[in-house]
Amino acid sequence: MARTVVESRTRTVTIGFDEPFCVIGERINPTGRKKLAAELEAGDFSTVEKDALEQVACGAMVLDINAGVVYNSNPDPNQTEPPLMRQVLRTVMALVDVPLCIDSSVPAALEAGLEEVEGRPLLNSVTGEEERLEAILPLVKKYDVPVVAISNDDTGISEDPDVRFAVAKKIVERAADHGIRPHDIVVDPLVMPVGAMASAGRQVFTLVRRLRDELGVNTTCGASNISFGLPNRHGINAAFLPMAIGAGMTSAIMNPVRLVEMEAIRAANLLMDHDPNGGRWIGFSRVAEAVNAGASFPDAARAAADAGAGRGGRRGRRRSA
Amino acid sequence: MARTVVESRTRTVTIGFDEPFCVIGERINPTGRKKLAAELEAGDFSTVEKDALEQVACGAMVLDINAGVVYNSNPDPNQTEPPLMRQVLRTVMALVDVPLCIDSSVPAALEAGLEEVEGRPLLNSVTGEEERLEAILPLVKKYDVPVVAISNDDTGISEDPDVRFAVAKKIVERAADHGIRPHDIVVDPLVMPVGAMASAGRQVFTLVRRLRDELGVNTTCGASNISFGLPNRHGINAAFLPMAIGAGMTSAIMNPVRLVEMEAIRAANLLMDHDPNGGRWIGFSRVAEAVNAGASFPDAARAAADAGAGRGGRRGRRRSA
Repeated sequence: MARTVVESRTRTVTIGFDEPFCVIGERINPTGRKKLAAELEAGDFSTVEKDALEQVACGAMVLDINAGVVYNSNPDPNQTEPPLMRQVLRTVMALVDVPLCIDSSVPAALEAGLEEVEGRPLLNSVTGEEERLEAILPLVKKYDVPVVAISNDDTGISEDPDVRFAVAKKIVERAADHGIRPHDIVVDPLVMPVGAMASAGRQVFTLVRRLRDELGVNTTCGASNISFGLPNRHGINAAFLPMAIGAGMTSAIMNPVRLVEMEAIRAANLLMDHDPNGGRWIGFSRVAEAVNAGASFPDAARAAADAGAGRGGRRGRRRSA
Repeated sequence: MARTVVESRTRTVTIGFDEPFCVIGERINPTGRKKLAAELEAGDFSTVEKDALEQVACGAMVLDINAGVVYNSNPDPNQTEPPLMRQVLRTVMALVDVPLCIDSSVPAALEAGLEEVEGRPLLNSVTGEEERLEAILPLVKKYDVPVVAISNDDTGISEDPDVRFAVAKKIVERAADHGIRPHDIVVDPLVMPVGAMASAGRQVFTLVRRLRDELGVNTTCGASNISFGLPNRHGINAAFLPMAIGAGMTSAIMNPVRLVEMEAIRAANLLMDHDPNGGRWIGFSRVAEAVNAGASFPDAARAAADAGAGRGGRRGRRRSA
C-alpha cells in the first residue's frame, strides 16, 4: 500500500489508498492570473495570504505554491523565480501550517523552495522528459521528498493511455535507479477535456486503476481540466471527482474554495469508508447549510471550525475542573 | 455484453454496459405515501398522472408502477391489488409512452400487470426466497420479460456482500433452469445506509463490478437508501450515483424529479462516453440554469424539450421549403 507522507513543521498528511482524498489547493499560482502576477512582481503578497487562509479554511490539506511570474523588469525566471518562490513560501508558512507542494518548471526555483520549506514538501514535478528526469530526480533524492510525476515525455502528451502508462512506468523505474521508492511518486496520468476527447473520463479511470494495481503508486490530477470548454463545469467536476476516487485516485490539485466540488469529495470519502462515523460529513453539512443560507464558503467553514474549537475548549475546561 | 431490452408500445430502452444509465422513476408507489394511498383507494388518479408526467419530463426512461395499497375497506391485497394495478397502468399508458416496471409483492398483481401492459415491461421483482422463485420465474418465462432480482433469500438480507453475490448467482442459475437468460435479469445487490454500515458504499461498488464481470448481468438499486438517516442526503446520493456508474451499475430506481441527482447522472454519462458530443449535457445545462434562476425542474425540463421540438419543427420546415 503506497503511503506518501508530506509534512509541514508540525502537521503530517498521508496520501494513500486507505486515506481520505488529499485536496491540494491550486490557487497560489500566477499562471493565468495577471493581477496576482503583477502583485507578486510589486512585492504585494496580500492575495497570497488571502488564498492561503481561504483554501485551508475550505479544506485544502496541502497547498501548491507556484511563483512562475515572468517579470516585466527581468524576463529570466532563472534569476527572478527562486527568490520569489522563497518569499511566497515564507509568507504562506507564516500564516498556515499545512504541508506545501513546491511547483515550478524552473529547477532552481524548486531547489530554492526545498531549501526554504520546513518539513517534507511535495515536489511538483518531474516528467518523462530526459532533461527533466536528470534535473529533478537528484533533487528528490537529495532532499528525500515525494514528487509528482506527470506522464508526458519528449514526444509530448500522448492521447493513447497505454503510452501515458508506459511513461509513468519509465519515471518510476528511473526514480528507482536514483534510490527513490514508488511510494514517494504521485503520478498525474493527465486529464484531457472530455469536451475535446469523449473517452477522456474512462481513460483516466482505467489509468488510475492500472497505476494503483500495477505500479502501486498514488495519483493526482488537475481535476478541472476534465470540464474545460463545457457549460456547468462544476457539475462535471462534481461527478468526475467521486468517479476518480472510486477508481482509486488519491489526490487532486484543485480549487478547494468551491462548495460543489468539496461536497462531492466529502461524500466520496464517506462512501469509501474514509470518514469514521460520518463525523466529517455531518460537520460539512452544517457548512453547506450556512452557504445555502447566504454565507460565503470560507466564512461558513471558518465559523464551523471555530465552533468546533470552542466545543473542544469547553471540554478541556470541564476536564480540568 | 448484457443488453436488457424493455419496451413500451412504441419506445425501446436498453439497459446495458454501453448505454446511458437507465433512470427508473420510483414515485408511483403508495408505500409511505398515505395521501396517495387514500387517493388510489378512492379511485383518484390525479397524483399518478402528475407523477408520470413530471418524472418523464425530468428524464425518467422507465416508470416503476407499484399499486400496493392496503384498502381500509378490504385488507386482502390479493383481491384489491390486481385490479388497482391494471387501473394505474392504464392511466399511465394513456399519458406517457415510456416502458414500465411492474412492481408488486403480490404475484397476482404482477400477472395482472403483465396482461395489461403493452410492450415488454420489466418485472419487479424476484428474490432468492424459494416461494418467490417458484412463483415469479414461471411468469418471467411465460411473458418473456426481464426481471429485477433482489439479492436476499429465506435467511433475510445478509450484511456479507459475498452472501449477497451468492444469492444473485443462485437466482441467475435458477432462472437458467426456466430458460431465462442472464441478460433478462437485472440484479439489485441491495444498498445499505452508509450511516448504519460504514462499508456500505464500497460493498456496492465491489458487488456491482463482480456481478458484471462474473455473472454478466445488469444491475439496479434503490439509490437513495445509501444516504438514509444522514444530513444533506442529496449530496451523498449525487456522489454515490457517479461512483456506482463508474463501478458498472447500469440503472437505478430513484426519484428523477431532483436536479442534483439527475445532474450527477448526466455528468456521469458524459464521463463514461455515453453522451455523444456532449449534446445531452449541454441541453441539461440549460435546464439547470433555468432551475437556478427559479423555475421548477419539471417546468424547466418541459420548456427545454418544447424548445428542442420547436427547433426540430423549424428545421423540418426549412427542409420542406
